[in-house]
Amino acid sequence: MVDRAYLDWNATAPLCAEARTAVATALDVIGNPSSVHGEGRMARHLVEQAREQVAGLVGAEPRNVIFTSGGTEANVLVLTPSIDVAGEKTPFARLLMSAIEHPSVRSGHRFRASEVEELPVTADGIVDLAALRSRIAVLNEQGERRLLVSIMHANNETGVVQPIAAAARIVHDAGGLLHVDAVQSSGRIPCDINALEADFLTLSGHKLGAPKGVGALVKRSEALHLLDPLIKGGGQERGSRAGTENVIGIIGFGAAAAAASQTGAKVMERVKELRDELETGLRAISPGAVIFGANVERVPNTSLFAVPGAKAETALIALDLAGIAVSSGAACSSGKVSASPVLAAMGVPTALALGAIRVSLGPATSEGEVDLFLKAWTKLVMGLSKGRRGLAA
Amino acid sequence: MVDRAYLDWNATAPLCAEARTAVATALDVIGNPSSVHGEGRMARHLVEQAREQVAGLVGAEPRNVIFTSGGTEANVLVLTPSIDVAGEKTPFARLLMSAIEHPSVRSGHRFRASEVEELPVTADGIVDLAALRSRIAVLNEQGERRLLVSIMHANNETGVVQPIAAAARIVHDAGGLLHVDAVQSSGRIPCDINALEADFLTLSGHKLGAPKGVGALVKRSEALHLLDPLIKGGGQERGSRAGTENVIGIIGFGAAAAAASQTGAKVMERVKELRDELETGLRAISPGAVIFGANVERVPNTSLFAVPGAKAETALIALDLAGIAVSSGAACSSGKVSASPVLAAMGVPTALALGAIRVSLGPATSEGEVDLFLKAWTKLVMGLSKGRRGLAA
Repeated sequence: MVDRAYLDWNATAPLCAEARTAVATALDVIGNPSSVHGEGRMARHLVEQAREQVAGLVGAEPRNVIFTSGGTEANVLVLTPSIDVAGEKTPFARLLMSAIEHPSVRSGHRFRASEVEELPVTADGIVDLAALRSRIAVLNEQGERRLLVSIMHANNETGVVQPIAAAARIVHDAGGLLHVDAVQSSGRIPCDINALEADFLTLSGHKLGAPKGVGALVKRSEALHLLDPLIKGGGQERGSRAGTENVIGIIGFGAAAAAASQTGAKVMERVKELRDELETGLRAISPGAVIFGANVERVPNTSLFAVPGAKAETALIALDLAGIAVSSGAACSSGKVSASPVLAAMGVPTALALGAIRVSLGPATSEGEVDLFLKAWTKLVMGLSKGRRGLAA
Repeated sequence: MVDRAYLDWNATAPLCAEARTAVATALDVIGNPSSVHGEGRMARHLVEQAREQVAGLVGAEPRNVIFTSGGTEANVLVLTPSIDVAGEKTPFARLLMSAIEHPSVRSGHRFRASEVEELPVTADGIVDLAALRSRIAVLNEQGERRLLVSIMHANNETGVVQPIAAAARIVHDAGGLLHVDAVQSSGRIPCDINALEADFLTLSGHKLGAPKGVGALVKRSEALHLLDPLIKGGGQERGSRAGTENVIGIIGFGAAAAAASQTGAKVMERVKELRDELETGLRAISPGAVIFGANVERVPNTSLFAVPGAKAETALIALDLAGIAVSSGAACSSGKVSASPVLAAMGVPTALALGAIRVSLGPATSEGEVDLFLKAWTKLVMGLSKGRRGLAA
């Protein structure tokens, strides 16, 4: 009998079994990977093994994996004007990004505000490729070819998968580079850097079942060189990222990536069945529920929905009390609840957006957890319809 | 019978028992500290508890501790012209640093090269306060009062302790701010931010027995505000450092800091005895050995020495084969061995500096390890004197 359902895997995943085993071993790794003695070489060996495992998840060369403290740092690291492309070092003058990128892209980039442009998304939450094509054509006509474009692979709130390979062709034809934040897609759908034709991929360990605090920036080619590393000092990560490596985190990341490479596709089929079952149950209980992005391709684990009249902040508290951990699409900062910029970009009315609830599943999610959610949701909806705050004990 | 001696604690410390226990518990912490549900609040609670423990180690307010991915990131974060001091936001125009700072200070800072000046050190490896005073007087006369000064508390190679409180008074009288890299001193000697009169302290978890990949920037006052965070995106660390927190690392850091607060002084007395015993033995075996900084205050765990005619690179390999993990003062990059900039700044001749070997001890170091080192050193010296490469099996 399940009495608690953790359904917030897009916020962070519990440590997976493979990462737990690897981390337990890593606790005994004494050395600093930069040291030349035996202890140092052992730490180096394990870091490099993890680099191969992470590279393997996305079809990259291990030497093109730069370990960072997470997805946020990887996004800030790569979104800089100073990228050397096969010897061409002219600074990038323009950053184009979709309107639904993560805050670490939207406000983490290292361009001047005047150099950044947002690309619209459709009502389904897909970046508007026609807008990308026409904007790039105008910039090309104006002589701008050093364009950096950042489009996420799957959105963190809706789970909607973006047409990366098609975007890459548009960007490359115009002489630009494409960065793809794959934090919410890697391990959930195929994420091969060459198949996507992405020049850079951002990965996060903890969304995959690794410890929090580790991620990577992956380059498609060694000919891409970041001229302005974010964290400078020692020569770690081939000069692209200084500081003693997070050895425990990196080893855990490698193990989680290897597990996702081996069994991810099969596991995600089951996750999709559970997510679809949850959505079927939800529609039965709340026929008015709007499931965002339901008509387009989504990652298999995510469902973002809203029921007209419901407030997400109230529902989250009631669900938590009933044993369900989910999150809202709304960003709450300094006590003021504001609607999600992602839903705003999709044209969702604010009143509906303020009720958005995100349920995200993972490899360890059980049928019992989905049932617990649906039971709690039923009670919540009954409470709402009776005008009560819901879920009285 | 000890068959291996890890004497490279200044490179990194093995996980201490307290951190190991805390980390083992942390593996079961599921939530993201930014999530509002129970799992998230538990993660938040543990991160804030660790923040109190780290603050406690240096006598700071917990709200003034900013967790980072390590000492390097903390140094790069703080060494920026954009610091708001109680509402005064004029950019800092000048960074003064000692000539023996860590590479993350020397090349990690975010000032233009023309705005940075190095302060000389004495032959004993102590920053020249007279030079600091006179240079600051000249700058003050020229109307420059927005001066940022960075002086490490204890040098990573020599262990020499710097006169921080005296430097702080000079800096503050001139209207400037003092940043202190306390990575090699915290947990080894008293390191109270108020007693030191430092405005900012950099800490590293893994030098204290916490996992690698976590550190902190500590502010003396909430009136100091970093206007240009290095890693931007989400609002973590009160807006000073975005990205999901390294929960396992932070919890381990807190536990290691608490342990050092409680037993550090007593433990370090023993460490000092062992270090002194090692140096006595060394002088008996190699009467010509030069121990750098031996006549001035050093942290209790560090000994940097050189024997005329010996090459550190050869000795390190021989010692490693004999079961001893130590490091050299020489920085080896791109295959070229160059003398340590620290020893160069102290005026040590290159030929001698190329033989420098750093032995650094820690709380778990045993008498047996010191004996093993001295035995191996004896064999090495015998080998050297016979013209052999030393330590044939």
